[in-house]
Amino acid sequence: MNTAGRTAKSAFPVEGAAHDELALFTDLYELTMLQAYYHEKMEEDAVFSLFSRRLPEQRKFLLACGLDTVLTAVENLHFNDESLSFLKSTGKFSREFLDALRGFRFTGDIRAVPEGTPVFADEPILEVIAPLPQAQLIETFVMNQVHLQTVLASKASRMVSAAQGRTVVDFGSRRMHGIDAALKAARAFYIAGVDSTSNVLAGKHYDVPVSGTMAHSYIQAHEDELSAFRAFADLYPRTVLLVDTYDTIAGIHKVIALADTLGNAFQISAVRLDSGDLLALSRKARQVMDTAGLNKVEIFASGGLDEQSIAQLLSSGAPINGFGVGTGMGVSSDAPALDMAYKLCEYAGKGRLKLSTGKPVLPGQKQIFRREENGRDIGDTIGRAKEDLPGRPLLETVMHKGRRLDTATKDLKEIRSHARKQTDRLPSSARQIVKEGPFYPVKVSEALSDFQQEVTKRVSS
Amino acid sequence: MNTAGRTAKSAFPVEGAAHDELALFTDLYELTMLQAYYHEKMEEDAVFSLFSRRLPEQRKFLLACGLDTVLTAVENLHFNDESLSFLKSTGKFSREFLDALRGFRFTGDIRAVPEGTPVFADEPILEVIAPLPQAQLIETFVMNQVHLQTVLASKASRMVSAAQGRTVVDFGSRRMHGIDAALKAARAFYIAGVDSTSNVLAGKHYDVPVSGTMAHSYIQAHEDELSAFRAFADLYPRTVLLVDTYDTIAGIHKVIALADTLGNAFQISAVRLDSGDLLALSRKARQVMDTAGLNKVEIFASGGLDEQSIAQLLSSGAPINGFGVGTGMGVSSDAPALDMAYKLCEYAGKGRLKLSTGKPVLPGQKQIFRREENGRDIGDTIGRAKEDLPGRPLLETVMHKGRRLDTATKDLKEIRSHARKQTDRLPSSARQIVKEGPFYPVKVSEALSDFQQEVTKRVSS
Repeated sequence: MNTAGRTAKSAFPVEGAAHDELALFTDLYELTMLQAYYHEKMEEDAVFSLFSRRLPEQRKFLLACGLDTVLTAVENLHFNDESLSFLKSTGKFSREFLDALRGFRFTGDIRAVPEGTPVFADEPILEVIAPLPQAQLIETFVMNQVHLQTVLASKASRMVSAAQGRTVVDFGSRRMHGIDAALKAARAFYIAGVDSTSNVLAGKHYDVPVSGTMAHSYIQAHEDELSAFRAFADLYPRTVLLVDTYDTIAGIHKVIALADTLGNAFQISAVRLDSGDLLALSRKARQVMDTAGLNKVEIFASGGLDEQSIAQLLSSGAPINGFGVGTGMGVSSDAPALDMAYKLCEYAGKGRLKLSTGKPVLPGQKQIFRREENGRDIGDTIGRAKEDLPGRPLLETVMHKGRRLDTATKDLKEIRSHARKQTDRLPSSARQIVKEGPFYPVKVSEALSDFQQEVTKRVSS
Repeated sequence: MNTAGRTAKSAFPVEGAAHDELALFTDLYELTMLQAYYHEKMEEDAVFSLFSRRLPEQRKFLLACGLDTVLTAVENLHFNDESLSFLKSTGKFSREFLDALRGFRFTGDIRAVPEGTPVFADEPILEVIAPLPQAQLIETFVMNQVHLQTVLASKASRMVSAAQGRTVVDFGSRRMHGIDAALKAARAFYIAGVDSTSNVLAGKHYDVPVSGTMAHSYIQAHEDELSAFRAFADLYPRTVLLVDTYDTIAGIHKVIALADTLGNAFQISAVRLDSGDLLALSRKARQVMDTAGLNKVEIFASGGLDEQSIAQLLSSGAPINGFGVGTGMGVSSDAPALDMAYKLCEYAGKGRLKLSTGKPVLPGQKQIFRREENGRDIGDTIGRAKEDLPGRPLLETVMHKGRRLDTATKDLKEIRSHARKQTDRLPSSARQIVKEGPFYPVKVSEALSDFQQEVTKRVSS
């Protein structure tokens, strides 16, 4: 078994047991095609590109994410006895083929943009160059992970942008789509600039800062709100108190009463508003607290927030210091999926594409060249991999002959910092959360365009 | 350790390794509140209700799902050494409290509607009755799983309804939100009436039928489409051939050419259309195949389908025999999240609620009474748990003193059959996928309403 203990643990916090079964996390047709390739001896190198055909109307760029999970999985991919027994039990596979699967390992290369890099429609996030069956088998898993993590990082980037430097905390575990999503999300959000997560397990596995306040149930379980505040502050002097269980402003007055009782021992850092008109309530809360001398107590808001409501609150001057964001970010509610595809674009040295209506493919290995001017990125060219075009190339080799390159193992803080720098370099119109405005220009190089026409001509004949 | 090997495996196909760490899949505030409860000795019984405050505009009912996962997790919940070490490392927890966590077990009761039961806004899907800290800790996990599985089962039910008895296959693994979501989805979809999944691992773990066709890459990797068809049919005589790689109707003609070549050996079961105008193409394909005597070859459609497009295709008379559904169903794209909440409604024998704007809670243990007339369900009453009201009660005890009851372990086919029967009993307006039409009537009993007023009065004072 091809073990890579170094990274296996961090990438599979919850799929550990299934790590041995991950080869079965695939669409059945991948395996039936593999059997056909095996019998037809079609094992020459193929190139597959992973890209989004178009961006959702509400996204101006995508923040690439998920590569680390992919590399760990692919490096360790194999069929264990139990998996092979199951495949045998389906009656769909020959003994000869199942024997061949027993020795299956991924021996190819992967080229990818680093995690935290902004990408646009048609731009490859990664390309897999490997014997056809190997590159085919990993399709489902690679897409599942890069899609999920890119969807979430891209959404979170908008939240961070809307919050204009104020704290953003991930509260979404309870409504994200399952355990894997919630954990991967905490990591993707952190890469995109979110400050911390409420998910303890994510904190343990990814070393993302963990934070939290208190729930309504704690207040409700006490005989009255002030007793609850007092008891919690006693144990956690610098905590955030949730004030909207019964009446927000009455709750604020109880915080003031607590301050009066505690005197210098009062160290509450913030109050949290979780319902109602957050603009009006934050203003009133600020005013009431300031009048009482609690100028240092911050206001933290939560409750159904998304980037639009955060932007609107701040542009209206809401005195809010931080945001807890749950569902909107956690399921990327306005765009929960991307039109992402993993497409064969070369086999046995020949460019390949399909002509299905509305689903064009750029053939062959490609490169993205990002051009800059005065420190700002101004436009991309998608070219053929070996072209030498103006701009910095974004795709790097991250796996060679089935082994992850050392340069492809990055510290999470480093990825976060890369994401910030790369996002900051985009034109301001691409960073705005509004739909309007000019889109970032992406063109296809002449050589690639010619090659596409040439392949189209060949396959149409 | 409280092992329940019987079900642990099936409910944790991919979280196996983390099973031991599942207690950390929680929001940090649950644990800080637990520490406060510990120090305040607040360990009397609490009641929490899990319900949706309202239905998404595009849903007329929800199909409850996820209970099996919850029961397995809760029955096995504990903190292992590694989890406790991590908590210690955060510096937020006392040694005394961490020692207490070492002995943590869930010892309470759970009452729930069976999986596959339609529920409406405000109706409890489950209620947890347990010492306050225990009921509090499980909030994040319980919501995460019931929310996800209910979102997906509810969406799938609409697809099945739109397909009017035609085959519906889950193709969504590649764009669902992570590994856990894709696997749980295959199970939830099957419960809701979907016929099979493409996900092999889901087939292994849940015994859901697995199916699949072929991908464009297989066609593209061959020198021409007909060679690809022939090679695939050679290995899989009854397969489904994908015909839209280059030109759909030209692809159909190649299927006919294959039939001509193979003669009686031709057994292809269907062609798959994956792009373009599916109505026009399916009509033309049907006509061309019928003319060639291929009347028995069915037409299978896929490509960005949802319940609206399926309904429209069928109402226009598209001769389509089955549908492959991916992203739309897989992320429940029109309603990826529910306004689901897990709320304290009783503690230490007293009804509890919060008064936060727009977020009402029904206090105490409750029951749903579903009334029927001539074999059709006509409306529900949410009452207090011990009321005796007209209609059949839906919530059953599924866990007692921390142990899952035998009656709560059901075969997947049994759950699927229950879902179908219960859905069929709903008024036709509730089963239609259009937004319009009368909504299913749900009222609150007089006794529960009185109790709510009484508790409101107490907590407001």
